[in-house]
Amino acid sequence: MHKVYADYAATSKHKPPEVWEAMEHYLKEIGTSPGRGGYSLGLEADRIIFSARQKITRLFNGDKQNNVFFSLNVTHALNSVLKGFLKKGDHVVTSSMEHNAVARPLKALEDSGIIELTMVQCTKEGLLPQDEFEKAIRPDTRMIVITHASNVTGTIMPVKEVGEIAASKGIFYVVDCAQTAGVLPIDSKEIKADVLAFTGHKGLLGPQGTGGCYLSERAVQEIFTTVHGGTGSKSDLLTHPDFMPDKFESGTPNTMGIAGLNAALDWILRRGVHDIRAHEEKLTRLFLKGLQELSDKVIIYGPQDAAQQTSTVSINMEGYDAGEVSFILDRIYGIMTRSGLHCAPCAHQTIESFPEGTLRFSFGIFSTAEEVEYILDSLGDILAQK
Amino acid sequence: MHKVYADYAATSKHKPPEVWEAMEHYLKEIGTSPGRGGYSLGLEADRIIFSARQKITRLFNGDKQNNVFFSLNVTHALNSVLKGFLKKGDHVVTSSMEHNAVARPLKALEDSGIIELTMVQCTKEGLLPQDEFEKAIRPDTRMIVITHASNVTGTIMPVKEVGEIAASKGIFYVVDCAQTAGVLPIDSKEIKADVLAFTGHKGLLGPQGTGGCYLSERAVQEIFTTVHGGTGSKSDLLTHPDFMPDKFESGTPNTMGIAGLNAALDWILRRGVHDIRAHEEKLTRLFLKGLQELSDKVIIYGPQDAAQQTSTVSINMEGYDAGEVSFILDRIYGIMTRSGLHCAPCAHQTIESFPEGTLRFSFGIFSTAEEVEYILDSLGDILAQK
Repeated sequence: MHKVYADYAATSKHKPPEVWEAMEHYLKEIGTSPGRGGYSLGLEADRIIFSARQKITRLFNGDKQNNVFFSLNVTHALNSVLKGFLKKGDHVVTSSMEHNAVARPLKALEDSGIIELTMVQCTKEGLLPQDEFEKAIRPDTRMIVITHASNVTGTIMPVKEVGEIAASKGIFYVVDCAQTAGVLPIDSKEIKADVLAFTGHKGLLGPQGTGGCYLSERAVQEIFTTVHGGTGSKSDLLTHPDFMPDKFESGTPNTMGIAGLNAALDWILRRGVHDIRAHEEKLTRLFLKGLQELSDKVIIYGPQDAAQQTSTVSINMEGYDAGEVSFILDRIYGIMTRSGLHCAPCAHQTIESFPEGTLRFSFGIFSTAEEVEYILDSLGDILAQK
Repeated sequence: MHKVYADYAATSKHKPPEVWEAMEHYLKEIGTSPGRGGYSLGLEADRIIFSARQKITRLFNGDKQNNVFFSLNVTHALNSVLKGFLKKGDHVVTSSMEHNAVARPLKALEDSGIIELTMVQCTKEGLLPQDEFEKAIRPDTRMIVITHASNVTGTIMPVKEVGEIAASKGIFYVVDCAQTAGVLPIDSKEIKADVLAFTGHKGLLGPQGTGGCYLSERAVQEIFTTVHGGTGSKSDLLTHPDFMPDKFESGTPNTMGIAGLNAALDWILRRGVHDIRAHEEKLTRLFLKGLQELSDKVIIYGPQDAAQQTSTVSINMEGYDAGEVSFILDRIYGIMTRSGLHCAPCAHQTIESFPEGTLRFSFGIFSTAEEVEYILDSLGDILAQK
């Protein structure tokens, strides 16, 4: 049986071999913790983390590697940002296509009476109506949070245009790049975001247990520390350091994970994000075309245009339960997909697939046209059998 | 040149080979994210994490594996507990030997006017004066936080006795086991703690990027979620789930790290914590005896009694700077140690080594008597040269 992984939006199962080689090297030859020891092998751990910060900065066309902080995952990174910045009475504008990593912390802040929240309704394709969005902004709006691309439909948001709006009004601007870092070109200067939040284990091809943010100078100044602890710096003080990156990094980091991410970043920078995007766009086009031709029983969500979305495609098949098809694809055809609500209930409400959810396919740099054809054939098979 | 690692209190550089094997297996053969996909390989990731929870529960003689939550490190775990439990007006009692992972979050809560804090002064040996400690408890004391053993002097705290006090007064009780999990026997029923916070990469011999807590039923009920996000559960809701372990786990976990920790826990449970403790106690006794015989220029901090401390020993040498000796030990003798304040300024004030700090040695299960003798010989060498 073929084994086809089509769940890159959850995690990139396949990594460049350099990733584990770097992790094995760290574990077997270094193994120390960074920032805390004077011995040479401790400095090796420091160098790895420094190098990963440099590469994230380069990837996002940033200026200061110390404005990168690392965290367990993008959820923790976003929590640090949202809860460290927002204050009593702030108004926040976001979209109806957000992942729970954004929606749940914002909802918790709203429920506890700290913020007021406006969730701008997107179109059925998951597209952001820019006029509506701009109208939602109020004089007391202090933050805009938006996903760079939906994890349900792949819809790419107009982050540059929203950045212009935010900049013109002096509103703090957070972009959730969980689905796009390493997959779409991201230019911090062009997007004008105060925060680019990323995860290490999806498009960046690193291991799970890594994520973080690239921060603007304003973000560095205006976000307060929410996690306090040892930093290996200013150890004479009981107050947490206020300089980067220590301000947002407490306790021993996931050095081994960052070593893997560092190698993955090398690979991505060498290959080039434009090239990765071209590969994924080609596969998405092939897949969308195939789906459209397959049967009129197939409902495709999102823009249905490879240029307007990532390689994530959500579908349903009339008369079939998404979970059932996902199960059959795995057990009979060896195809790994994800069905359900994908931790994004509002997005499913927006595209009118709530509460049943969808069957989601997502491709990566190691996916092939043969795999896409095999998935299409398998779906055709399932449709033919009923 | 010999290469001797004597910084186990920072991280266990050496791991059982099974740890890397488990991580490599996860990365190459599984690679999926847990709790989020219906396909078989996704369930493999679930099983690893489930198995690690079971072993933590067994290690601490707990009852419910779902009362274990995992985090980036013990600092993040402690932050979740302290900030998720304490409310405006609460009084907290802690000791003067705490690491900044406890002291800094508590200080931040005090500084922002949320809690009142009493830090009970320990003796010069780092020992907790139980009478003083009990006197510090007030009618409005809602939490006691104490380290199981100091990361500076190794001093073991009377966590069982403090647990009796806490239980008799109904005070929420948090024990920081960063220095002791996997090294000293820890029985959740005997200690009567509401929270046992652990790190995965020190005595537990797992990789960095892992830590967490074992919680009592009271803790499960009374600690609020401070990090909100996707959990792969209750995905139809914008409110974070209130059941364990999802309540305290948001976003994709460090599955690879937990796979390594799971293998390390297997190794520890097979070997037995009593056996590990016996080995480390023997080496500590040898080292303390050697230091005492070395020169009257050597100042030894802490209890100077292997039975009353972990394998962590802090010293100074009259006429020498701790940082300088640490540097010489690394460069000339290949011995890795840690000098300075070890992220625990109050502990150094307590033992009267502030602000210069100490030279810290710490041993682990892979340390040998030969290494201890070599360190003693090297220190003798340095003393003889001046």
